[in-house]
Amino acid sequence: MTQPVYVGIDVGGTNLRSASFIGHSATPARKRKVPSRQPATHETILADLAQAVESVLPPGISHPAAVGVAIPGPVNPRTGVVVIATNLKGWENLPLGPRLSEKLGCPVVVGNDANLAAVGEWKFGAASGYHDVLFLTVSTGIGGGVILDDRLLLGVNGLAAEVGHIQVEPDGEPCNCGQRGCLETVAAGPAIARHAIAQLQTGAAHESALRAFNDGDVSRLTTVQIGQAAAAGDSFAQEQIRGSGRRIGRAIASMLALYNPAVVVVGGGVSFTGDLFMAPLREAVAASGLPESYWKGMPIVPAALGDDAGLIGAAAAAMGSA
Amino acid sequence: MTQPVYVGIDVGGTNLRSASFIGHSATPARKRKVPSRQPATHETILADLAQAVESVLPPGISHPAAVGVAIPGPVNPRTGVVVIATNLKGWENLPLGPRLSEKLGCPVVVGNDANLAAVGEWKFGAASGYHDVLFLTVSTGIGGGVILDDRLLLGVNGLAAEVGHIQVEPDGEPCNCGQRGCLETVAAGPAIARHAIAQLQTGAAHESALRAFNDGDVSRLTTVQIGQAAAAGDSFAQEQIRGSGRRIGRAIASMLALYNPAVVVVGGGVSFTGDLFMAPLREAVAASGLPESYWKGMPIVPAALGDDAGLIGAAAAAMGSA
Repeated sequence: MTQPVYVGIDVGGTNLRSASFIGHSATPARKRKVPSRQPATHETILADLAQAVESVLPPGISHPAAVGVAIPGPVNPRTGVVVIATNLKGWENLPLGPRLSEKLGCPVVVGNDANLAAVGEWKFGAASGYHDVLFLTVSTGIGGGVILDDRLLLGVNGLAAEVGHIQVEPDGEPCNCGQRGCLETVAAGPAIARHAIAQLQTGAAHESALRAFNDGDVSRLTTVQIGQAAAAGDSFAQEQIRGSGRRIGRAIASMLALYNPAVVVVGGGVSFTGDLFMAPLREAVAASGLPESYWKGMPIVPAALGDDAGLIGAAAAAMGSA
Repeated sequence: MTQPVYVGIDVGGTNLRSASFIGHSATPARKRKVPSRQPATHETILADLAQAVESVLPPGISHPAAVGVAIPGPVNPRTGVVVIATNLKGWENLPLGPRLSEKLGCPVVVGNDANLAAVGEWKFGAASGYHDVLFLTVSTGIGGGVILDDRLLLGVNGLAAEVGHIQVEPDGEPCNCGQRGCLETVAAGPAIARHAIAQLQTGAAHESALRAFNDGDVSRLTTVQIGQAAAAGDSFAQEQIRGSGRRIGRAIASMLALYNPAVVVVGGGVSFTGDLFMAPLREAVAASGLPESYWKGMPIVPAALGDDAGLIGAAAAAMGSA
């Protein structure tokens, strides 16, 4: 008997990635990465996605059992319509689920990429075996996904678990979302760079190897450079990463009161700095004052699937649909 | 054919209330209210609850189809064990679900009272017909319950949706829960009184009828008195209620990003002041900057069941179990 083949697609602003999975495995059989086509129309998008599926099917397989697609933006979970895809033009209001399903002749699940990354970590990664999961991904922005009682929380419009947009500073800096002082504005990658630059520009006392980067122009410092300097032992750079961990840990405490998960998984570029980021994050949760019943013994762990979380999660959602 | 009879019990620090419901109706057939016995033991509690059930059964009915019990504190949703009941001694670690079920010979559902009030409003009240509901109750404390995709969010230990304990002021006043600056500490009934007293004590410019209450001792002002003065048209008192509405509205915006409900229901004593409280609450949500997709056209409505929400919700949970 032939095992079913599932295909996951991860749509990004730069690349369109796809991979096939045989049976209920999280190890890709074939993977493909091509640049995202821009500009795009609904027709070119559907053609590109069909191609992304067909080109990763194993030899002798003409049809997948089901396909999952991770989108960098809001998706209506009931209808499979993409509202917008961040940094991609032409995706607005695309009825992707029904149109691609018709084209491919199989079920197609469409979801927000952070939500599907949460599904990936839950089914095959750091939250495997848990029923109640809070997942955050911290990089240029902060996204997330929540599974409670073995179900992904979607909300009425598929907009639940926007964990980067909980307000943590009542009169903080403006956020892209329109609010002020969102977690994303105070703790994501760009905020780390912004805080570091502001301190280096105003505080002569801050000694740091970062002052030598970019020909001494501290205004051009990037989060990646701060991560590099931190890894090399620069204490000022390390303190910037720790600060982000503490701010995120404090916000996680509020989210524990709202979701009461059994495990918290943190992914994204910033989490790759390891304990430098995760240790102060965990300490901030413990120091929040939140009753121990919410956090004592609850693991707060780094994500296990790295950049593949969305791809694997999209396939996992497909596995659940067929 | 006889319709099934369900019994709801609402356990409070002052009173033990119970009511029977015939079929899937929210209109009590018989109601009873007796003082909560204190001190209590597991044995007296079980005897009192059995009595609370039997005394409201309609004539000729010897057994209910199922019973629901609302507890003022955390309950393990998997095991039906009461962790603690606020202001009631002797309830600690009571395996209420299994013990009462054995005693009565029918299914017994045990839940947190705010969670079950949310269920009541969802099944029979202001959120009837919706699938995604955020419910808050604002009185001495702030509690809540969330239904997403027709399921009550419980979390791994039944501690989800503690909406009063989202942190809204990073360095705010200490909260009973152990954190600082929780929504409850800045916007619940006692906070309204505290803010008003502080302003009257320090700001001679604040003219208010409240200065005449309690023989002129403003330190003894209560939230109920502020509500009375507001209803009578005192503008200072009204501004206190509005301030609570604004603070709660601001926190609701963060919760919309986390839960994405289709409707928000606000109950509890403070909400009984009507539009004085609800209008600034709604305005704060709209002014938060949160994308319109979260709140445009989403109703934010007062609760419909008043003090009976927990009682009706407990019965509704029983109806769902049998």
